[in-house]
Amino acid sequence: MMLDLSVVYAFSFLTVAISIAFAAYLFLWVKKQKATNETIIKISDYIKSGANTFIRKEYTLLAIFAGCAALLIFVFLPSPIWTGNALRNLEMAIAYICGTAISALAGKIGIVVATNANSRTAEAAQKGIKPAFLVGFRGGAVMGLAVVGCSLLGVTAVLALIGDSTVLLGFSFGASSLALFAKAGGGIFTKTADVSADLVGKVELGIPEDDPRNPAVIADNVGDNVGDVAGMGADLLDSNVASMAAALVIAEALDKAAGGSQSNMMMVFTYAAIGLLSSVIGIASARIGKKGSPTRALNASTYITSAIYLVLTALATALIEGFSWRIWGASVVGLAVGMIIGITTNYFTDDTKPIVKRVARASATGPAFTILSGVSYGFISAMPAMVGIAISALAAYKLCAPIGEGYAMFGIAMSAVGMLSIVGMIIANDAYGPIVDNARGLAEMGGLDEETIRIADELDSAGNTVKAVTKGFAIGAAGLTVISLLGAYMSEVNEALAEAGKSLISGFDVMDPTVFFGILVGASVPAVFSAMLILGVDRNAQRMVAEIHRQFKEILGLREGKPGVVPEYDRCIEIATTGALRELIPAGLMAIIVTIIVGLIGGVSAIGGFLLGNIISGLLIAQFMSNSGGLWDNSKKYIESGEEGGKGSNAHKAAVVGDTVGDPFKDTAGPSINTQITVVSLVASLMSGIFAVFSIFG
Amino acid sequence: MMLDLSVVYAFSFLTVAISIAFAAYLFLWVKKQKATNETIIKISDYIKSGANTFIRKEYTLLAIFAGCAALLIFVFLPSPIWTGNALRNLEMAIAYICGTAISALAGKIGIVVATNANSRTAEAAQKGIKPAFLVGFRGGAVMGLAVVGCSLLGVTAVLALIGDSTVLLGFSFGASSLALFAKAGGGIFTKTADVSADLVGKVELGIPEDDPRNPAVIADNVGDNVGDVAGMGADLLDSNVASMAAALVIAEALDKAAGGSQSNMMMVFTYAAIGLLSSVIGIASARIGKKGSPTRALNASTYITSAIYLVLTALATALIEGFSWRIWGASVVGLAVGMIIGITTNYFTDDTKPIVKRVARASATGPAFTILSGVSYGFISAMPAMVGIAISALAAYKLCAPIGEGYAMFGIAMSAVGMLSIVGMIIANDAYGPIVDNARGLAEMGGLDEETIRIADELDSAGNTVKAVTKGFAIGAAGLTVISLLGAYMSEVNEALAEAGKSLISGFDVMDPTVFFGILVGASVPAVFSAMLILGVDRNAQRMVAEIHRQFKEILGLREGKPGVVPEYDRCIEIATTGALRELIPAGLMAIIVTIIVGLIGGVSAIGGFLLGNIISGLLIAQFMSNSGGLWDNSKKYIESGEEGGKGSNAHKAAVVGDTVGDPFKDTAGPSINTQITVVSLVASLMSGIFAVFSIFG
Repeated sequence: MMLDLSVVYAFSFLTVAISIAFAAYLFLWVKKQKATNETIIKISDYIKSGANTFIRKEYTLLAIFAGCAALLIFVFLPSPIWTGNALRNLEMAIAYICGTAISALAGKIGIVVATNANSRTAEAAQKGIKPAFLVGFRGGAVMGLAVVGCSLLGVTAVLALIGDSTVLLGFSFGASSLALFAKAGGGIFTKTADVSADLVGKVELGIPEDDPRNPAVIADNVGDNVGDVAGMGADLLDSNVASMAAALVIAEALDKAAGGSQSNMMMVFTYAAIGLLSSVIGIASARIGKKGSPTRALNASTYITSAIYLVLTALATALIEGFSWRIWGASVVGLAVGMIIGITTNYFTDDTKPIVKRVARASATGPAFTILSGVSYGFISAMPAMVGIAISALAAYKLCAPIGEGYAMFGIAMSAVGMLSIVGMIIANDAYGPIVDNARGLAEMGGLDEETIRIADELDSAGNTVKAVTKGFAIGAAGLTVISLLGAYMSEVNEALAEAGKSLISGFDVMDPTVFFGILVGASVPAVFSAMLILGVDRNAQRMVAEIHRQFKEILGLREGKPGVVPEYDRCIEIATTGALRELIPAGLMAIIVTIIVGLIGGVSAIGGFLLGNIISGLLIAQFMSNSGGLWDNSKKYIESGEEGGKGSNAHKAAVVGDTVGDPFKDTAGPSINTQITVVSLVASLMSGIFAVFSIFG
Repeated sequence: MMLDLSVVYAFSFLTVAISIAFAAYLFLWVKKQKATNETIIKISDYIKSGANTFIRKEYTLLAIFAGCAALLIFVFLPSPIWTGNALRNLEMAIAYICGTAISALAGKIGIVVATNANSRTAEAAQKGIKPAFLVGFRGGAVMGLAVVGCSLLGVTAVLALIGDSTVLLGFSFGASSLALFAKAGGGIFTKTADVSADLVGKVELGIPEDDPRNPAVIADNVGDNVGDVAGMGADLLDSNVASMAAALVIAEALDKAAGGSQSNMMMVFTYAAIGLLSSVIGIASARIGKKGSPTRALNASTYITSAIYLVLTALATALIEGFSWRIWGASVVGLAVGMIIGITTNYFTDDTKPIVKRVARASATGPAFTILSGVSYGFISAMPAMVGIAISALAAYKLCAPIGEGYAMFGIAMSAVGMLSIVGMIIANDAYGPIVDNARGLAEMGGLDEETIRIADELDSAGNTVKAVTKGFAIGAAGLTVISLLGAYMSEVNEALAEAGKSLISGFDVMDPTVFFGILVGASVPAVFSAMLILGVDRNAQRMVAEIHRQFKEILGLREGKPGVVPEYDRCIEIATTGALRELIPAGLMAIIVTIIVGLIGGVSAIGGFLLGNIISGLLIAQFMSNSGGLWDNSKKYIESGEEGGKGSNAHKAAVVGDTVGDPFKDTAGPSINTQITVVSLVASLMSGIFAVFSIFG
């Protein structure tokens, strides 16, 4: 079968339409579920309005940022406006703004769905696990389908309308720069609230989690939504768009070199659209028996999606002229390695495995040993993912290099696209987590019966377990995406060098001290970035603790729980919001500005090294932080289940210290690093034209 | 002036003779000082015999390891024996054994001097700060001069006798492999004892530090000697030898390419010998007034040494034909950047600067915040050193590239040699630290008067302050050395490829997925290595705590301090020794074996990437661990000085947790990483001949 790019575009748009229609149907289905319990409705409204306050403030601030960035893009990118290509700069600026808008939209959809689904899941749990699972899962699915649909729509539209993959990088940069702030800002918000609520509530006053007397309790629940749902959605949207953009930049160059065939670009779109379609089918097939296990149901739909993806892409590869089996193989390798990474990572954070138990046992000797053992296993846990990414990159290379020059990098890009094309399903599973987590809190605050709470607990724990596998995909895909972004960067550099009449580069040699200079500086950026976010949580939590203390002191009857006395929840939300926004800007700007400085000093070679150093240390630190955080969290839960002396023992106190340290590790810094890497890679690609021409030592 | 290599060798040998004679004179001077206080003599003898027990056991084990390694080298390196070059393999194996012997000797000298100087320093402190400073400093100086003298002697002898710089890599590998185990083993020993002594003594029983009732107290003091003195000496000897070896490998290749002139090799020796000579003068000039500040005296002699080095090398460069001013410039840049790194690092760990105070303030909120802020600032503190190393590498490159092809890397190697040539002075300052630290403990245990203890305290605190600057040199030099080892590796690879009749490589391109594969795996090795050491300390401390508990339970009257009742110090030393040796072997072997596996899979290119990844993540993690550990230590001391509630406050308890976490960070894992990088680089260089011929994907 011979195809043409316009047919592929049409197929993409059709898939997007199907997925968005299905998402709308699921959303209406969720909305139709009963919400009757008044306490739950009231609290749920508090959470909804708190989340909206944060989103509104955040988006106002980010609109200003995006406006400034768009202006700078218009003046300077891809080449300064005075060099006479104003139209292209305008296209780039508009693509950038569209990218930010898509990312903002994804976050907003997530918030709306999650804050509607949580209360309904809680109520559905009264009728049993089957209906409750469906509400929670379908809520997550709306988010997954909407995010992936929007991103495929955006990418297809940009390319169909403008037909230039460099402009697509502008679109991707828009999505990334917003995701960086959404992820980091949401991460600071959620941990500020969580840490402060625990510190004053559990540690100082000894009142239970989710106690409505605690002024920070609503902020804590809002945090789950703005950090985990909105932030995560923006983050995965960003990875998804970036992987497609990188693959398309490389594909365009290959197609050009092959004399105008468009089969490589068609392949990217076809695979991406098939991935979305597979997610639709996987989501539609998700079911749970009356006594079934939610974990099994979630994992089963992931495996179904993957299998459908493999079969359909194989079909497409067999039928369509110009599609290569080797590339298909690369995408299969990516998918397989993603699962392996998930399973090995799970070994370090699952409380049925020995590592969690060892950290729990070390806790009996005191908090220093909780920290030492958690840090150590966190560092060790980075190895499987690093080696896994290394092997899949090497395998994709060996598979695809024989096709021709440049195909090795395209193979790597396609293995990332392969992994990420089932991202709709991954987001569905990931967003399911905070929805049922919130539902559990609402069930408790709403005074629902014990059986309901037990069901909510079971749903919640399934969310945590499944996260390990989806996280494996997310990390593997991010690793491969950034490698292909490095490839995209080189394509852009050579285009810019050709335009400037300079000689092209064939790579970045680590023996070249300019490259080496970039590597060392690049490697230190994720360390500083994550430290700034953690310190931001730290400072912000101090402010919030002071506010909680003030309320308990000034509001009479609050501590005793006098009927009718309600804390000022708004003030805590206000503090978390303002503080998060104040702390996130410097960290994000630091990463962008250092990139620009390195580029202006060392030129395109230094930036090549810079990106590499950034990727290496970023992957390492992200793994370390995410896994040690998860490990501490589960060690604490393991002790709370009655092991090593149970609640209240010395081991438990030590484990609480570990968990508090791990909170900003795993929910603020760790997951923001991926986005930081993407942003920096895109800044580098976009500015390659400038770095190629102006630089001190380049 | 025209020179010839044999004149330079003669000059080297002369300098070595001067320095060793001077060291011998200083050692006799120290021995001549009075030792009269019986308690001090008795305790000092305990320490001496404990340290000797450890050294004896360690060296027995390492002799077996070295024997096996020498056998493997004889069979396989530089090329398998059946390819018909048995003599060269024999030379290599002998050079390797000489390297291990030199390293063992350096450790032994350090132990002998330090355990003799500590008691004499304590007694001299009764007569005032001036004589006490001199005893402590001269003790350290013996170590510095002996180490640098031995290493210059070894390098000169190997090259003068065999005349092949590849064999020199074997010598260097001998020194490194022993240093790896000495540093890691000593590090595990010292922290096992320190942590256990504190945990049972201070935390559980509330008895003061250095209380003779504590069964671990002698092991703790032994630890200072085997970890800080012997381990540090082996470590800096290793860096020193490795930097010379790397520079000489590159110099030999350049000299060959220049048609047999030997000016580059002569330059390396001349500079190294001048460095040693400058250290002799700097040490001889160290004086302190009756009321003078020991900090100023120590820093002054470092600056004097540097100035003399600069002047003498400038003179040599001006007078000797073929020496280049550009190379001189590179070594000046190295020296300057070393100082800058020291000063900025100091900012993060000095208790008169804001960071230490901030961590102390965060501690008031609980141990989780001590850890979070310390980890954050630790990560941030890595940036100045990384950027500093990056800038000095770039500057050396820009300075030396115009000389000709290959000179850029030689410039970097020479800037490391420049930095390390004043290493005699650095070791003198570094070894001064544990000597006066021990002296302080002895003064307290020996019941000396308060003024004496105050003087010992002042000497001790000067040691801590000066350490920051010397550490800057050590880290900067290690960074530059490993870069030049990468250069040496490439020289070796090309030699091997030429022999095998394959095409040469011009560098390691990060866009080559084989290189990339190596980078990712290499980056995870220091993370796993440091984690294994920390877990080793953890496990070993658990064993020792159990032993201390047993003694307090079974030895009647020990807890109450009944006269005549003495704990079984030996048992604790025994446990620390056996445990340290049991834990260090797997970590060291892991690093070596992973290197070999990567080489056999990916060949020479993968190993190029592997070394790079190892360097990058190694520098980052080493900085993070060393600095956060120092930061926690000083925050605790700051609180103990009465700030934030002082001793016994909640802030203090939290700071103690931070300090316990920081102990294995800064004294076990952090400083062992440099050696791990050197070992891996040398294994790679030595095996390059094999990787060039056999590998699966290379």
